[in-house]
Amino acid sequence: MQTRSNMANTTGKVITCKAAVAWEAKGQLVVQEVQLAPPQPMEVRIKVISTSICGSDILMWSSKGSSFPRIFGHEAAGIVESVGEGVIDLEPGDHVIPVFTGECRACKFCKSPKTNYCANSYVNAFETGMKYDGTSRFSIDGKPIAMYLGSTFSEYTVVEYARVAKINPSAPLDKVCVLSCGVPTGLGAVWNVAKMEAGSVVAIFGLGTVGLAVADGAKVAGASRIIGVEKSPSKSELSKKFGVTDFINPADCEKPLPEVIKEMTDGGVDYAFECTGCEGMISTAFESCQNGWGTTVATSVLRENASILPSHLLNGRTLKGTMYGGFKTRSDLPELVERYLRKEILVDEFITEDLPFLEINKAFQLLLSGQGLRTALHF
Amino acid sequence: MQTRSNMANTTGKVITCKAAVAWEAKGQLVVQEVQLAPPQPMEVRIKVISTSICGSDILMWSSKGSSFPRIFGHEAAGIVESVGEGVIDLEPGDHVIPVFTGECRACKFCKSPKTNYCANSYVNAFETGMKYDGTSRFSIDGKPIAMYLGSTFSEYTVVEYARVAKINPSAPLDKVCVLSCGVPTGLGAVWNVAKMEAGSVVAIFGLGTVGLAVADGAKVAGASRIIGVEKSPSKSELSKKFGVTDFINPADCEKPLPEVIKEMTDGGVDYAFECTGCEGMISTAFESCQNGWGTTVATSVLRENASILPSHLLNGRTLKGTMYGGFKTRSDLPELVERYLRKEILVDEFITEDLPFLEINKAFQLLLSGQGLRTALHF
Repeated sequence: MQTRSNMANTTGKVITCKAAVAWEAKGQLVVQEVQLAPPQPMEVRIKVISTSICGSDILMWSSKGSSFPRIFGHEAAGIVESVGEGVIDLEPGDHVIPVFTGECRACKFCKSPKTNYCANSYVNAFETGMKYDGTSRFSIDGKPIAMYLGSTFSEYTVVEYARVAKINPSAPLDKVCVLSCGVPTGLGAVWNVAKMEAGSVVAIFGLGTVGLAVADGAKVAGASRIIGVEKSPSKSELSKKFGVTDFINPADCEKPLPEVIKEMTDGGVDYAFECTGCEGMISTAFESCQNGWGTTVATSVLRENASILPSHLLNGRTLKGTMYGGFKTRSDLPELVERYLRKEILVDEFITEDLPFLEINKAFQLLLSGQGLRTALHF
Repeated sequence: MQTRSNMANTTGKVITCKAAVAWEAKGQLVVQEVQLAPPQPMEVRIKVISTSICGSDILMWSSKGSSFPRIFGHEAAGIVESVGEGVIDLEPGDHVIPVFTGECRACKFCKSPKTNYCANSYVNAFETGMKYDGTSRFSIDGKPIAMYLGSTFSEYTVVEYARVAKINPSAPLDKVCVLSCGVPTGLGAVWNVAKMEAGSVVAIFGLGTVGLAVADGAKVAGASRIIGVEKSPSKSELSKKFGVTDFINPADCEKPLPEVIKEMTDGGVDYAFECTGCEGMISTAFESCQNGWGTTVATSVLRENASILPSHLLNGRTLKGTMYGGFKTRSDLPELVERYLRKEILVDEFITEDLPFLEINKAFQLLLSGQGLRTALHF
């Protein structure tokens, strides 16, 4: 294990390290040497141990509107290399998980138990790729390289302290990297946002990592039935271990999905979770809920507005959403790691492939194929 | 006061009485004699003492798609004249408030504390004007006259027992008629649906009866600031007694309403209530909420879908709705009447005009003018 003593030699210096640089939309990532500046005040420089790939990395990498060249990646776990001025609760050697959204503990939102929104360090999913001051810590030959959230597709990265959770050092970093984004989003959608009661009937739209974490969260919370909707047939078998009891492939349906689900469930589900990232699916999920108390939780970053029938609202349905499952980055993530160590939640099962970091382009193709879940890349 | 003894002579017989019949969309109502059949099994025949006019009466009366001839009206209070077979908890002489939505106490929704939706007697706001069996209890010379909800613009009417609340006979029927629809919708939107905490900042879109009942409900629950949005300038002064602290007339705004409200409130309100009945206003209300926990409650019957930005959901906003404020008709309304008798809620203040029933057309014009609140019509 790396300790403070053997990492101290880089403190305050520019680090030259390997990173996967995206030079154009949908182009091959190039693993090459980059320069990483020391952390500025209230920032933390982290040695990344393992990183995995999330759908929103793919989304932004695919977008011509994105900034290039750019270093993507935001699901990771690592070890603090050095800290910037003013960072008092982290020190070199700490085991940490960087999270795309932060907790400043000073704003009115952080002081409220009702939300994990933070006025000072909340994510803007369509952000420009620069830090708040308009600069990047990464460069190649003096030219800045845009960042994306934690920019964890790199041996080292710099993240605001408010977006870094210190965790139990006995947790395996090559596993808990997936607690950096997708898995808590799903678990928290059930526990913190829907506040699902035991015995509930649930539908999940999309059985990727977020959707299957919803399934695990619902199973843990005592759902009586968990219906999974997914177009990739391979997920039918895979989803069982996460608690999915009924699998629907939309390609097999002769009627619209809400009708199919209403017929299966005496009028609709108690809770629906939108985890596909596909435009229009919030409305489909909302239509699949029952009157009285049916609640839809949106988890995906979408650009198109959802279309909601007012009479469904008047009949008692609710529409909510969540970023990172409502978990407060620094306060709640350490406990989630403990729950993993106590084997109360699934984590290892979300990693369906392990690869060396150098094979990151293969990992991108695996996620695009829709076959597995997360690929963990190890440095 | 009428008692069982002096009403018994009509039991089981057709009653000929005066009703206001709408013969065409937007046409003058004609107060004329109609025939009213006795209640069928599980129905109640009521002598209406006072009735008021709600926006949805106007909406349906204005619609060419409505059935005509038709007897509108659904806000009322009266006395049971006779009951149909199987009605065991009501008897002639009982003081009652008919409500447009019901509580059967047998379905899964009625058995849950989470909702006032009822699978067996919930309102369909766009209903055809006939009872469930396709018939009407009203006729003229043997030709059926369509009903609308309780059809209370008549000296007598017939309502399903599940839509009738028995109340304390000491409550003045000429006042509590407004507890039949608009006032509980507003109060319950705050108490049962938003579950607003003391200290909250609230915006109300539309200061008609529903909107001002929201204001009163928010005041009772300890709101720190109540912003009322209304295009009728006369509501500025009137709304103060209901608790509105800040009045906005959209005509005076140089920026879109959500921007104006966000500037006034450090980023948006905690709770927004849509009470205008105007298409598109759910979206405006939703935009005016703050991130983190901002909650919008829809109360109006609208036909167009609401357009909701997914990132607002992900940033922690919620969209809900309510019919009749989430109050269960038979279980909760009697207690609301008690709260009025204990002077905990405003009721009399919603009646800005009293007229004899014969002047119902004048009362329609008063509501259309947007000047006052409810006109109570007395038989």
